[in-house]
Amino acid sequence: MDALRAALEAHPDPASSAGPEALTCIYESAQCAYVCTTCADACLVETDHGDLSRCIRMNLDCAEICAIVGRFLARPGHQDRETLERILEACVIACRACAGECRRHDEMEHCQVCADQCERCADACEAMIPALVP
Amino acid sequence: MDALRAALEAHPDPASSAGPEALTCIYESAQCAYVCTTCADACLVETDHGDLSRCIRMNLDCAEICAIVGRFLARPGHQDRETLERILEACVIACRACAGECRRHDEMEHCQVCADQCERCADACEAMIPALVP
Amino acid sequence: MDALRAALEAHPDPASSAGPEALTCIYESAQCAYVCTTCADACLVETDHGDLSRCIRMNLDCAEICAIVGRFLARPGHQDRETLERILEACVIACRACAGECRRHDEMEHCQVCADQCERCADACEAMIPALVP
Amino acid sequence: MDALRAALEAHPDPASSAGPEALTCIYESAQCAYVCTTCADACLVETDHGDLSRCIRMNLDCAEICAIVGRFLARPGHQDRETLERILEACVIACRACAGECRRHDEMEHCQVCADQCERCADACEAMIPALVP
Repeated sequence: MDALRAALEAHPDPASSAGPEALTCIYESAQCAYVCTTCADACLVETDHGDLSRCIRMNLDCAEICAIVGRFLARPGHQDRETLERILEACVIACRACAGECRRHDEMEHCQVCADQCERCADACEAMIPALVP
Repeated sequence: MDALRAALEAHPDPASSAGPEALTCIYESAQCAYVCTTCADACLVETDHGDLSRCIRMNLDCAEICAIVGRFLARPGHQDRETLERILEACVIACRACAGECRRHDEMEHCQVCADQCERCADACEAMIPALVP
Repeated sequence: MDALRAALEAHPDPASSAGPEALTCIYESAQCAYVCTTCADACLVETDHGDLSRCIRMNLDCAEICAIVGRFLARPGHQDRETLERILEACVIACRACAGECRRHDEMEHCQVCADQCERCADACEAMIPALVP
Repeated sequence: MDALRAALEAHPDPASSAGPEALTCIYESAQCAYVCTTCADACLVETDHGDLSRCIRMNLDCAEICAIVGRFLARPGHQDRETLERILEACVIACRACAGECRRHDEMEHCQVCADQCERCADACEAMIPALVP
């Protein structure tokens, strides 16, 4: 996301956390939101694999919270550490839960791709928390 | 976005439009949503450059519609062509308008980055429309 | 939504469309986004009623576009008529399609509630279009 | 929001928290998202009142997190208590911070309306936490 990097670098008054952790966290959470959305849509028609409603719901949870993470981090001029910390924690929890559920469905490639992406996103959010402005 | 590409390819029953145009359109619209968000946040503190409220509002318009484009395209199993066509058209209009406004502020690097990204996103949305399922 | 009405009335420089049509449209689209979300969640466990994946997908489409309508209309200071018109048209199309699909499932109360709400939202969006700033 | 109440009541397998607290929390957070959006848009043109960039940013923070609260609560079939608790906490923090900032601008009616709504939303989120499924 070269344009986003350039935009963040051109910000006239960034909080200190608009660094590489923020860019990685925005990128991984954006991708995670879309991968979870695709996984949920795929699970809807995987009728040979039992009840996937739990997996679909976790995908939807995860997509929602991932989408919001980037929207906060892409506004680097101000950061309310307390709010952001709770949002990043919620994202880590939702991603780990979704990864755990998707990992169980090892016969479906999209669930494995989703589990991997959820773990990358959770890692990126965890790395972001200590980089927030104190 | 390799994981998203893998997830889309693993979808068991995609509509025909889950091809490279969709992947490009998701990627560019995601990046555009974040770049516009960063540009709006930067404009809020660019107090030496006159009234930027029009630029900020166009950035916010553009970020909203860009964010929704990817959410639709990341669900490839079903596509309501009529709805999607209107959404892609709205995104093209918002992106072109935002690019035009940002282009005027050539003293601010973030506005130039944003104008470029808005044009890339508009191009990707225009290329997506003929790729929608008939 | 008395607080929203008061906030819209207190706006120092509204476009002419921040009137009663806008308030109704924001309220009905917000409610429609949530009702569609609830209907999709309910359909996920209605395993005695055949394949509801089409209904779920239409609910998700409708929830997405409904959510964005209010976000645009709640910013009354600026309105890009062309963008907003396409978004409202997309919302009408998605709502009518979702209403039609939900109406077919007359054995499920949540689908009937959803069909009614989608029609109210479509009506409110249609009434909003001529009220947009020229 | 009678239709939403009816949809929630028609859900075939709700978690125990789809009760009156959930309906109130969805309604107040939806209204808060829109009121904050309107307040930010109004602040953009309130040029006689000094630098309102902090108020605008808090409004945008608050609108984002409020919008997601309802999207989670409107899916009553499943609730990941840990994720939801963090999201509700984040919403309370963002609402209280925004209320505090808006309250300072007592010469602007939209800021007072917004402060009141943020407090109502924070109260509703706080009341929701103990109602979550254990």
